[in-house]
Amino acid sequence: MTTIEVHASKSYQIRIGYDLLPTLGHHISTLQGVEKVCLISESNVWPLYGDTAEQSLIDTGFETCHYVFPAGEPQKCGETFLAILNFLAENQLTRTDAIVALGGGVVGDLAGFCASCFLRGIRFVQVPTTLLAAVDSSVGGKTAIDLPSGKNLAGAFYQPSLVLCDLGCLDTLPEAVFLDGCAEIVKTAILFDPEMFRSLMKSGPSFDRESVIARCVAHKRDIVTADEFDRGQRQKLNLGHTIGHGVEAMSHFTISHGKAVSIGIAIAARAAAKLGLCAQETCDECLTLLSQFRLPIETEYCASDLCAMALSDKKRSGETINLIIPHAIGDCTIVPTPISQMESFIQAGL
Amino acid sequence: MTTIEVHASKSYQIRIGYDLLPTLGHHISTLQGVEKVCLISESNVWPLYGDTAEQSLIDTGFETCHYVFPAGEPQKCGETFLAILNFLAENQLTRTDAIVALGGGVVGDLAGFCASCFLRGIRFVQVPTTLLAAVDSSVGGKTAIDLPSGKNLAGAFYQPSLVLCDLGCLDTLPEAVFLDGCAEIVKTAILFDPEMFRSLMKSGPSFDRESVIARCVAHKRDIVTADEFDRGQRQKLNLGHTIGHGVEAMSHFTISHGKAVSIGIAIAARAAAKLGLCAQETCDECLTLLSQFRLPIETEYCASDLCAMALSDKKRSGETINLIIPHAIGDCTIVPTPISQMESFIQAGL
Repeated sequence: MTTIEVHASKSYQIRIGYDLLPTLGHHISTLQGVEKVCLISESNVWPLYGDTAEQSLIDTGFETCHYVFPAGEPQKCGETFLAILNFLAENQLTRTDAIVALGGGVVGDLAGFCASCFLRGIRFVQVPTTLLAAVDSSVGGKTAIDLPSGKNLAGAFYQPSLVLCDLGCLDTLPEAVFLDGCAEIVKTAILFDPEMFRSLMKSGPSFDRESVIARCVAHKRDIVTADEFDRGQRQKLNLGHTIGHGVEAMSHFTISHGKAVSIGIAIAARAAAKLGLCAQETCDECLTLLSQFRLPIETEYCASDLCAMALSDKKRSGETINLIIPHAIGDCTIVPTPISQMESFIQAGL
Repeated sequence: MTTIEVHASKSYQIRIGYDLLPTLGHHISTLQGVEKVCLISESNVWPLYGDTAEQSLIDTGFETCHYVFPAGEPQKCGETFLAILNFLAENQLTRTDAIVALGGGVVGDLAGFCASCFLRGIRFVQVPTTLLAAVDSSVGGKTAIDLPSGKNLAGAFYQPSLVLCDLGCLDTLPEAVFLDGCAEIVKTAILFDPEMFRSLMKSGPSFDRESVIARCVAHKRDIVTADEFDRGQRQKLNLGHTIGHGVEAMSHFTISHGKAVSIGIAIAARAAAKLGLCAQETCDECLTLLSQFRLPIETEYCASDLCAMALSDKKRSGETINLIIPHAIGDCTIVPTPISQMESFIQAGL
């Protein structure tokens, strides 16, 4: 097991290894004063891991209850958020109790937002069951729901009290879901880690799970600790995401987050090369690594549609939008870009 | 105008005086970077002050929009919360824009919670139009909505960026609404301020508005600064509230918050005297001052019903509940009380 310490507004550990789920109760018992635990999960994940997780909690002496909602991004909405809050109230969780988010990013974002709001904040533990959640959404304390106008438009910065990444869960992921998470790993390598980038070029999707996840988590920990509330350097994590959100939205979310981010990274890299902001070789390396992971690097959507969708996203701040531009592997910068130039930037990268 | 500085997790000013509403735009312009302002208000308050407030903002050069919901506590619910979030998204407020909460506690709690969640937090300005909101809910950063299971069960600790208390608004309050706010003033005097207590004994409801409100706000500021997240001394502010919530709930909220708190204080004082925790004279003084403000000190509900309702409140933590016991004017303590003794405590105070 690898343990990563996070010291943000709350200090907590991220534990990465096998057999964490069957010992969930033991891990939760390291938090002080928890009596009741509410597990929150969705309909794909719960049948696989729910009983193991809940039984471990019961065996350790916790009272438990669980709320399982239908799988899928459309459930990351205000209505499910309110339904969960009501469930927590009906089950009389107190300020010293805890929530366990068992699932991928949808579960973690939603359960974390509920935890931040219920009684103005109770503790929650992230148990990511997808690679994407393990390397990205479970770390850093961004919780959210979608609104009809867009993704992640409401939420809270709220750190978990513990993150448990059971590598066993990743072994049973469908390939497409696994590769989806790889987009964030490639992103992390481009942003921060030339050594990991080279290693991933060799390994492709058969990379060593524990060490690569731990390395991604450590990079995210570093940037989140430096900029918890996303006013500065943390925005680098948006590499590929602003345009990627445009792709997701254009597809009505039939294109997955990872695939959309991959397309977003590819567009940013090609545009950067064409505009002389990075070497063509760097761009090619990025495209090659994404392709190694069988991730898409092309889209049929046009620049003006992608631009319109990207600008409806919350990262718009007044009259400029912050784009993350790769200059070299391990060297990316935040470039405030006038909204008026956004479409031609995307066009350059198509 | 009196200005009170607050240095909690956010630093901000509370400005108390006349003619603040017609100069709202000027006050908002002291916040950096705001371009668009969304006013949030309710159907009783908006016709009185909405145009003045919005026109001042427009005259100062802000873009504005406003969301006005039907007056009343039932609107402080999840559905209105989501409707406001959607409204903010549709009006494309960005992270650097601001919300103005124009109204009493319902507006402030709800708008503040929306501000804390929208884009994971945008700035908001409290403009309390009731005495209760001026001395209590607009200060300290507790925001909330009610859930079907109980009041204020979801929310956030989220400080405003500015509080503007226009005393002109208080002059037009219906007497019953004005006296409702007086319950929190009496509570503040009992908790912290023997001198103000004596002064209020003389003045009754004709106390000097600016100085008394400023004094109450300063007391609240002090305790909130010391314990922003309500883990310790801030709980003193619950004097009369735990039992008061029971009264409110039993009446299905037909008994107002202030009246319920007054009854709660009276029960706590009588119980404290009967149990030898305070002098009978102290209890009598509390009852006398509450009566001076034409606030109720008796209830027809029985101890077991009040107890059951009080225990469904979120202040229950495991197997004890923290009651605030007055020992003398200016000397109250937090007494963790076993749930099993709660009913007999209430019975002693009826």
